[in-house]
Amino acid sequence: MDCEIFSTGDEIRTGALADTNAAWLAGELEEAGVRVRRHQCVGDDVEMIMGVLKEIGGRADMAVVTGGLGPTSDDVTAEAAAKAGGVDWVLDARALETVQAYFAARKRPMPESNQKQALVPKGADVLYNPVGTAPGFAMTIGKCRFFFMPGVPFEMKRMFTDQVLPRILELQGPDRGFNRVKTFSTFGIPEAVAGEMLVTVSQEFPGIILGLRARFPEIQVKLYARGKNLEFLDRQMREAEKWVLDRLGNKVFSVKGESMEAVVGNLLRSKGADLAVAESCTGGLISTRMTDVAGSSDYFLLGTVVYANDAKMKLLGVRAETLADHGAVSDETAGEMADGVRRLAGAAYGLATTGIAGPGGGSDEKPVGTLCIGLASPQQIRTWRFLMTFTTRAMYKSMFAMKALDLLRRELMGISL
Amino acid sequence: MDCEIFSTGDEIRTGALADTNAAWLAGELEEAGVRVRRHQCVGDDVEMIMGVLKEIGGRADMAVVTGGLGPTSDDVTAEAAAKAGGVDWVLDARALETVQAYFAARKRPMPESNQKQALVPKGADVLYNPVGTAPGFAMTIGKCRFFFMPGVPFEMKRMFTDQVLPRILELQGPDRGFNRVKTFSTFGIPEAVAGEMLVTVSQEFPGIILGLRARFPEIQVKLYARGKNLEFLDRQMREAEKWVLDRLGNKVFSVKGESMEAVVGNLLRSKGADLAVAESCTGGLISTRMTDVAGSSDYFLLGTVVYANDAKMKLLGVRAETLADHGAVSDETAGEMADGVRRLAGAAYGLATTGIAGPGGGSDEKPVGTLCIGLASPQQIRTWRFLMTFTTRAMYKSMFAMKALDLLRRELMGISL
Repeated sequence: MDCEIFSTGDEIRTGALADTNAAWLAGELEEAGVRVRRHQCVGDDVEMIMGVLKEIGGRADMAVVTGGLGPTSDDVTAEAAAKAGGVDWVLDARALETVQAYFAARKRPMPESNQKQALVPKGADVLYNPVGTAPGFAMTIGKCRFFFMPGVPFEMKRMFTDQVLPRILELQGPDRGFNRVKTFSTFGIPEAVAGEMLVTVSQEFPGIILGLRARFPEIQVKLYARGKNLEFLDRQMREAEKWVLDRLGNKVFSVKGESMEAVVGNLLRSKGADLAVAESCTGGLISTRMTDVAGSSDYFLLGTVVYANDAKMKLLGVRAETLADHGAVSDETAGEMADGVRRLAGAAYGLATTGIAGPGGGSDEKPVGTLCIGLASPQQIRTWRFLMTFTTRAMYKSMFAMKALDLLRRELMGISL
Repeated sequence: MDCEIFSTGDEIRTGALADTNAAWLAGELEEAGVRVRRHQCVGDDVEMIMGVLKEIGGRADMAVVTGGLGPTSDDVTAEAAAKAGGVDWVLDARALETVQAYFAARKRPMPESNQKQALVPKGADVLYNPVGTAPGFAMTIGKCRFFFMPGVPFEMKRMFTDQVLPRILELQGPDRGFNRVKTFSTFGIPEAVAGEMLVTVSQEFPGIILGLRARFPEIQVKLYARGKNLEFLDRQMREAEKWVLDRLGNKVFSVKGESMEAVVGNLLRSKGADLAVAESCTGGLISTRMTDVAGSSDYFLLGTVVYANDAKMKLLGVRAETLADHGAVSDETAGEMADGVRRLAGAAYGLATTGIAGPGGGSDEKPVGTLCIGLASPQQIRTWRFLMTFTTRAMYKSMFAMKALDLLRRELMGISL
């Protein structure tokens, strides 16, 4: 069965917001074995919305629609749906109760305008909203079953998961296929190279399709499988997973969709080790990422952002001669920074970056894109130097931070560096 | 004249990527006075793409299309365009030269597959690509002028700005209206309150429309004006700007679309002052943001991420009694952190955060959302305590960092705090 996604609203139409709802819904539907054929968007215009609903009603089996269910005069989706379906637009008593209950629970009077949200097309299957004021509804227009949901992402996601997806799976009935998706998060292998290494996967495992997704600075390798025999599908997928891991090896840092910082954090925790970081060119990005992980205070002892040479010396004990002889961007400085921050914090590991993220600051000898990393462990201090080519300061910072975290990951896993 | 946006590609269709190209294009087109009516997306399917091109050709004046111009077998947009236009698909000699030149400049042999990118619909106006291998093209299908561009965002943006937009403006001809948009970046005022304060703008200045955009944690207030009399438009806009600034006052931190960190950086630079930061709950986010600004090494001396109490004491000189008597999350600790990091770096200003970003770590007395900020200046040390309510750790970190930067901005501008 084919599905379409329809987003309504001037914020999307005019580009004030990217349509992340559509992307989220498409991902959920595809993973559930529903083929998404088409997305579209128009503004808050009752005639335009009605027109699109009729078009979709003429060609799709089902459709999910978001936006335009709020209390203001801009919110015209329910009215357009009633018109497209040729039915009246009526007050639903239970929908009104849920809107009233929403305000009552917050000890706030219900504004008159919110009463409008209880108006739904006559005969619609109302989808009550436990986390907001806008109820959704399901109805048939033409040959298509439509599911109307609010545009606020967290309300929409909750309604989709709890109320819409079960109805969609029921609609699929015996025709239902199964989908399996497996994601390998990789770092340090270009997309084209990963593609070449894995291009024969569909020959080895018929029915399995390879997808590569650049999620800068990581590359996600995805395997998609689809079929009606769930047992066969799962077996194929397990074997294909093993085949992929044999080829990509330790370039894969997660098979569960985790971030690099979550992987590094788990490794630190499992070893009972802790970390201190000294950042120059990455400007705090490594610390920010590490502390994005809930519970990171268990292993993240200290971060320092030492742009100034003075700070490198006074705080971390980098020697003046090192800076004079080799420069702030050098293996030697990176090593002393890593050692210094490790000692300062009394941590098991010290990780340091110094480099040139641009746009200024480059030279012939040390162009923009130069990165030096120092890693101090209980056993030793090691350093690396890299030269990368990207286009923006943000890309350099992001890639530099990822490279440093990946070296730490490899150290913690005992992979030879 | 009405315009549509059409994105092709399985990455968008399946939700692997949100369609940020469409949002960017919609924003550019609307700002240029072109009304965007509809967006849509289908996958890499020649029949589907052809069908949508014909539909759009029957109703729109112009359309921008992205994606599917690459060298692989998935890339079928040019073929679909030729079919929809009823013309052959032919090799364009100059397009081939530009593809060859792209590889020659990089001293790499051109893969045979890239030759395909020089195939365009016969009679099309080829748009040469200075930054990638995929040329674009313009052609008419039905009553609509189509502009086909690559899907890689930076290639698409360059081609749109340099080659597509001028052609679109020419097409609009004497019918062309002018658009003016003015953006006020605000912080510290809820969207609904800003809306109430400014709701009468359209009565005061006919033709000016108010828009509010939540760009968490900032709120952007936008004024849109559109008309054929440019002089009148500009005068109305200047007066409306003044009117808005009178009402929002120092809640507005930029009228040029700058980020808070850029505004703070410029203030520091203009005063010849420098900054050191001590972060607990924000985990390095303030440092990351400050150093995202090119040239920030001029005023950003030192950042520290001090999760552990031990680090707060050893590094910043926070007193053990302060931690014992008041806790790590307290005005007292925030003040000592700010003072300590200011002294440590020898900076004019020291800014510190300590708080609870959740999901764990809250208590009845200090729930998740508690934030203490310390600001040490050459004159004094001040502290503030806030309690906020959001839903995720990332939201808390983002809001906490913004709040601290906004206090520093106000201090630097001499606004009473």
